[in-house]
Amino acid sequence: MGSVPDALPAPDATLADLGEFGLIDHVTRIVAEVAPGEEVLVGPGDDAAVLRVRRGHVVVSTDLMVEGRHFRKDWADAIDIGHRAAAQNLSDVNAMGGRAAWLTVGFAAPPTLPARWALDFVRGFAEECASVGAGVVGGDVTSSDKITVAVTVLGACTVSPVLRSGAQPGDVLALCGRQGWAAGGLAVLGRGFRSPRVLVDAYRRPQPPYDAGQLAADAGATAMIDVSDGLLADAAHVAHASGVGIDVTSATLDIPEPLLAVGSATGADPLTFVLGGGDDHSLLATFPAGTALPEGWVRIGAVADPGPDGPGVTVDGSPYEGPTGWTHF
Amino acid sequence: MGSVPDALPAPDATLADLGEFGLIDHVTRIVAEVAPGEEVLVGPGDDAAVLRVRRGHVVVSTDLMVEGRHFRKDWADAIDIGHRAAAQNLSDVNAMGGRAAWLTVGFAAPPTLPARWALDFVRGFAEECASVGAGVVGGDVTSSDKITVAVTVLGACTVSPVLRSGAQPGDVLALCGRQGWAAGGLAVLGRGFRSPRVLVDAYRRPQPPYDAGQLAADAGATAMIDVSDGLLADAAHVAHASGVGIDVTSATLDIPEPLLAVGSATGADPLTFVLGGGDDHSLLATFPAGTALPEGWVRIGAVADPGPDGPGVTVDGSPYEGPTGWTHF
Repeated sequence: MGSVPDALPAPDATLADLGEFGLIDHVTRIVAEVAPGEEVLVGPGDDAAVLRVRRGHVVVSTDLMVEGRHFRKDWADAIDIGHRAAAQNLSDVNAMGGRAAWLTVGFAAPPTLPARWALDFVRGFAEECASVGAGVVGGDVTSSDKITVAVTVLGACTVSPVLRSGAQPGDVLALCGRQGWAAGGLAVLGRGFRSPRVLVDAYRRPQPPYDAGQLAADAGATAMIDVSDGLLADAAHVAHASGVGIDVTSATLDIPEPLLAVGSATGADPLTFVLGGGDDHSLLATFPAGTALPEGWVRIGAVADPGPDGPGVTVDGSPYEGPTGWTHF
Repeated sequence: MGSVPDALPAPDATLADLGEFGLIDHVTRIVAEVAPGEEVLVGPGDDAAVLRVRRGHVVVSTDLMVEGRHFRKDWADAIDIGHRAAAQNLSDVNAMGGRAAWLTVGFAAPPTLPARWALDFVRGFAEECASVGAGVVGGDVTSSDKITVAVTVLGACTVSPVLRSGAQPGDVLALCGRQGWAAGGLAVLGRGFRSPRVLVDAYRRPQPPYDAGQLAADAGATAMIDVSDGLLADAAHVAHASGVGIDVTSATLDIPEPLLAVGSATGADPLTFVLGGGDDHSLLATFPAGTALPEGWVRIGAVADPGPDGPGVTVDGSPYEGPTGWTHF
């Protein structure tokens, strides 16, 4: 905590200029301004944060983001990257049917990184957390060759959490939120372009359907996952965890006009962005047949007994040959 | 969770050979074997872990470790580095007077890393957690140029947590646990030696006084911190957070024989290892005068009103000119 930092470091200051404790002072101030969090008895600055919890379930999830692998500084600015890092983790709590409450952030970066970049990142991160009522309660900073961000999110579940393993043959498969937009934006950026702007923006700052998880849990969802690896890859995670077959009906998937345009320009089938894309943090869930789907949820397929090859995913009744998502090694 | 992995990957398998989901399968199995954790309703493998909490305080802390900065693969084996990574975080909960219960681990590494190294790391990590009854409940794996480990620990406090900010003039300053041993071991390794073995081992696998934090809290400690930056640097954190002056009496500090030997061999004052070293995860606390110190705690100084320059730390009544700890940028 210590002394009160100046309003902002000099425009050309680096992390080395700011120093570890200067950086922590600035981060602590930004976080307290933007998203202090509820039920936080002790925030950043001690050996640990202290949170007041009600008796019940706490959900916890951790993600890593590495520069060059999960983001590029030339493809989005620091504020957007901060939003995206938070969204990725808030979405994991959403996918359990929980409410995100508290986050910690580990931030490793080169000493030469402009301090403004780091503080803009923190501001974007805290703003995204504040949008769902969550607060940043702790973290760590250190030096590394490439920017590496480690986020842990804690949330509360008022109902039983919705796992990946509860899908039953006969259930319907449903999706909520944009799907494939961010993958289209990423494809555009990878080719050196900046438009369609709506897709690039979707990649830079995803808009996860943060209310959809609790609505689905309340409506009786049997399994749920947030689409982070890719629609088919994540559907496969549900299929394997539940021991079922999942079939996606491609005609039910919304392919927005900008994705059609990217398909025409690149020669790619725009459906591949929808089936293989993962950065929108849409939610995928299964519901008992006959469930009135909550607002925003669209039926996109069905759950059946596993096929002769065991649990897995098909598209329109057949194995899918295109890319289904990404792998980390 | 998917298929059951083989007992062990081939001796020469890399992370790339194992693949993301193969690695996760192995890690999940090791963690479940070694330290499943109590009150874990859903462990690794879903979007988030689910924990059953009692109404009360939850403490949470995050740390990053970067290869080359916080550890070197040629200075310790993977099991020891795993133990050390866990110890560093368990110690933060200890310093609040809490009981560590659950941890998440983010693990980023080059695809060429031997899979055995990663799994040995996880085993050492889980073993250290199990030693205090804590379990690994989640994590993330991804690729990066250098091994980077992000740990978040959650714990419970049965009494009010002991902060850094509660020290009062008139309190006594006390220390529990080895102090300076790991710094001595690090100095030896940095010069290319492997002895005194007891110091090298202290660096490789610290032995934090895990019971001391709760004992101190129960005894009425007014402030507490774990020594991770250095004894004087961390005493200064307490002094600034509490707005007090802290004086360390050097004659009360135990300088073990192996540190004297390292001092003789290197020409360094062995006291510098004790005053500036940080990797033992000893605990530093303040208690009201007259408190019967709990077992293992030794009085090493006193708390007073801040001096004319404001809150800070002195040694034997004078400013200290030597190294007081390390900085991260």
